[in-house]
Parts: sequence; structure tokens; C-alpha cells
Amino acid sequence: MKVMNVDEIERKIDEAIEREDYEHLRVLLKEREKLLKDLSAEKLSEILEKDRERLRIIEERKSSLFRELSGLRNIKGSLQKNIWTRGDTIGKG
Amino acid sequence: MKVMNVDEIERKIDEAIEREDYEHLRVLLKEREKLLKDLSAEKLSEILEKDRERLRIIEERKSSLFRELSGLRNIKGSLQKNIWTRGDTIGKG
Repeated sequence: MKVMNVDEIERKIDEAIEREDYEHLRVLLKEREKLLKDLSAEKLSEILEKDRERLRIIEERKSSLFRELSGLRNIKGSLQKNIWTRGDTIGKG
Repeated sequence: MKVMNVDEIERKIDEAIEREDYEHLRVLLKEREKLLKDLSAEKLSEILEKDRERLRIIEERKSSLFRELSGLRNIKGSLQKNIWTRGDTIGKG
């Protein structure tokens, strides 16, 4: 990865969240980490504010995935029940 | 919901899986359940075969969600660590 300044990284972080590309996001956060110590308190504060908003987006996405998982578990149960109960009756006339 | 025959329901089940609409899928499976007892062994067997394939799709989707959740947990950890460690330093420097 080419050396980026913190503004470039910040922009790419937002893009990665948008694309739900969490692998790339991790790399970007690590890259940004190296730059944080040289930032002004003001810039750092601005970034942390953005991070809190990003955390909120991540939490929402997690909740949405948990809801979907719960739906999938229900469906899986219905399908399995059907296979188990009906599967046995086939061929027994 | 209007009364559907089993072939219509089967088609709509596949559409609901395609759209990842698990609420509707549950309703359809319940609706189908009522019709199963009147089907021929051949038809039932055909449906169970499809259900096994559907179960496979559901399992894959679950795995994909778990992978995404794992990625989200990592990101959440990174962001939180950043907020905790850097948040304290602001205004102290």
C-alpha cells in the first residue's frame, strides 16, 4: 500500500464502511494508527468524533445481521423438521 | 393470502429465498405444510429433495453472515480501542 496522509485514509475508511469491506477497513485502521501520534489535538478529536459515528454504523449492521440470522435459524428449523418428519414416511406407503 | 397449489407455493418459496425474505418464507412453509399430507409420495420426495438444497443455501448464507459478524467485531474492537486510548489524551497534551 502506498503511503497515504490521514485525510486520504479517512476517506478510504468511509468508502470501506460503505462497501462493507471489513478486511480493507482493518488494514486502513492499522495504517491510520501509525499517523495518529503526530496529529494535532483538534484533528485527533475530529477523527474520534467520526469514529464514534462509524461505531454506530457498525453496531447497526451487527443488529441487522443478528435479525437475519434469527430468521435463518427459524427457516432452517422448519425445513429440517419437514425433512425429518416427511422423509420417514416416503416409501412406507 | 389467496389459496395456492403446491407448485405455486414452491415457486414462491424459491423466490423468497432468492430475495432473502425470511418472513414471507416462513408463511409460505406454513401454508405448504397444510398441503403435504395430500401429495403423492413422488411429489413429496421431489419437494424434500428441493428442501435439502434450500437447507444448503440457508447454511451458506448463515456461514457468510458469521464471517461478516466476525469482521464487524474486529472493526468494532479497533474503533473502540482507538476511542478509549486516544479519547483520554485529548486536552491533556
